[in-house]
Amino acid sequence: MKSYRDVLTINYPGRRGFVNITPEVNRALRESGIKEGLVLVNAMHITASVFINDDERGLHHDYERWLEKLAPPHAPVEQYRHNDTGEDNADAHMKRQIMGREVVVAVTNGRLDFGPWEQIFYGEFDGNRPKRILIKIIGGSKRFV
Amino acid sequence: MKSYRDVLTINYPGRRGFVNITPEVNRALRESGIKEGLVLVNAMHITASVFINDDERGLHHDYERWLEKLAPPHAPVEQYRHNDTGEDNADAHMKRQIMGREVVVAVTNGRLDFGPWEQIFYGEFDGNRPKRILIKIIGGSKRFV
Amino acid sequence: MKSYRDVLTINYPGRRGFVNITPEVNRALRESGIKEGLVLVNAMHITASVFINDDERGLHHDYERWLEKLAPPHAPVEQYRHNDTGEDNADAHMKRQIMGREVVVAVTNGRLDFGPWEQIFYGEFDGNRPKRILIKIIGGSKRFV
Repeated sequence: MKSYRDVLTINYPGRRGFVNITPEVNRALRESGIKEGLVLVNAMHITASVFINDDERGLHHDYERWLEKLAPPHAPVEQYRHNDTGEDNADAHMKRQIMGREVVVAVTNGRLDFGPWEQIFYGEFDGNRPKRILIKIIGGSKRFV
Repeated sequence: MKSYRDVLTINYPGRRGFVNITPEVNRALRESGIKEGLVLVNAMHITASVFINDDERGLHHDYERWLEKLAPPHAPVEQYRHNDTGEDNADAHMKRQIMGREVVVAVTNGRLDFGPWEQIFYGEFDGNRPKRILIKIIGGSKRFV
Repeated sequence: MKSYRDVLTINYPGRRGFVNITPEVNRALRESGIKEGLVLVNAMHITASVFINDDERGLHHDYERWLEKLAPPHAPVEQYRHNDTGEDNADAHMKRQIMGREVVVAVTNGRLDFGPWEQIFYGEFDGNRPKRILIKIIGGSKRFV
């Protein structure tokens, strides 16, 4: 069994946004030499997500509006208690739960085993500071094992 | 380390619905000969989900109504931008985020290591066409490794 | 390849609540002797979650209120059909989908490969009875493999 680890750092210029990190995951997979196995990609911070969906600008706009509705920046009745601590990001912790912390992707014949439209995104919900994404790959170096 | 790959194709007759795919995952696991490891089961399409919950018809009805409320087919104010592209499935991309893309299940002594009610479902949110589900299993062929 | 399995049992005194299970996962990882690999931690019951977020009491209060709003105990129009079966926990099956069934965490140099605030929680949405959490670890026993 082999394993490989890499960390990406993203300093998103703005509070919220989505970044396609598929090229970086592909690069890490090539460097790993792993041909059959699993890739874990996860946000290392708890107000951010890693998820798989479409690389379509309109959809990302829709996600932004939808998440603002499902997890608004201000609580409907009283202030979020988390924000009593001096934070202002309770909503970011909620958005991250809807979009997810991590993805696990199969590696087959040395490639991400993806359907036609699958792309890996980093979702930032409390940006303007450097945050990290972990890529961990485990598996075997033979094509068929 | 061994690995095994299989792909299921489902052409769901209708826009939305849930299909219990546990028997197919069990079959793949038997064919793999893997006794200890992990199974990844994921939708290969981005308007569909794989998730684990109860095989109870009333609950599936409730999920359907609940998802229509949380991610309605038409945006509350203006049209979804994704649908400006000619698509009509922005809501399906949202429902998929709530229900999830994938599950990872432990394999112990050659079986899915499940609690009493766990069943694996395919969730279709934009059906009436063939879509694929990936089953990837990695692990060892000895009972205790 | 090595594998390790452990099961935690939690009997949460109350309908809903969050329990930090990171110490138990760390203990299992030490016992496993695995240095490089993946840990899967999942609820074995379908009205409970395992997720990673902040160990902050105010945030947990906010999650509780937020989940009650997104997945209320009583359906807005008619009763949940799942509850026609004699159950009263349809909302718990919904809350579990938002918060997720499982987490997959990288193991690096024998430790959970975590960012600064990541902690693993059990989320109970239908408590007052014993429920189980599965910890499955696969990987290698060498530090760099």
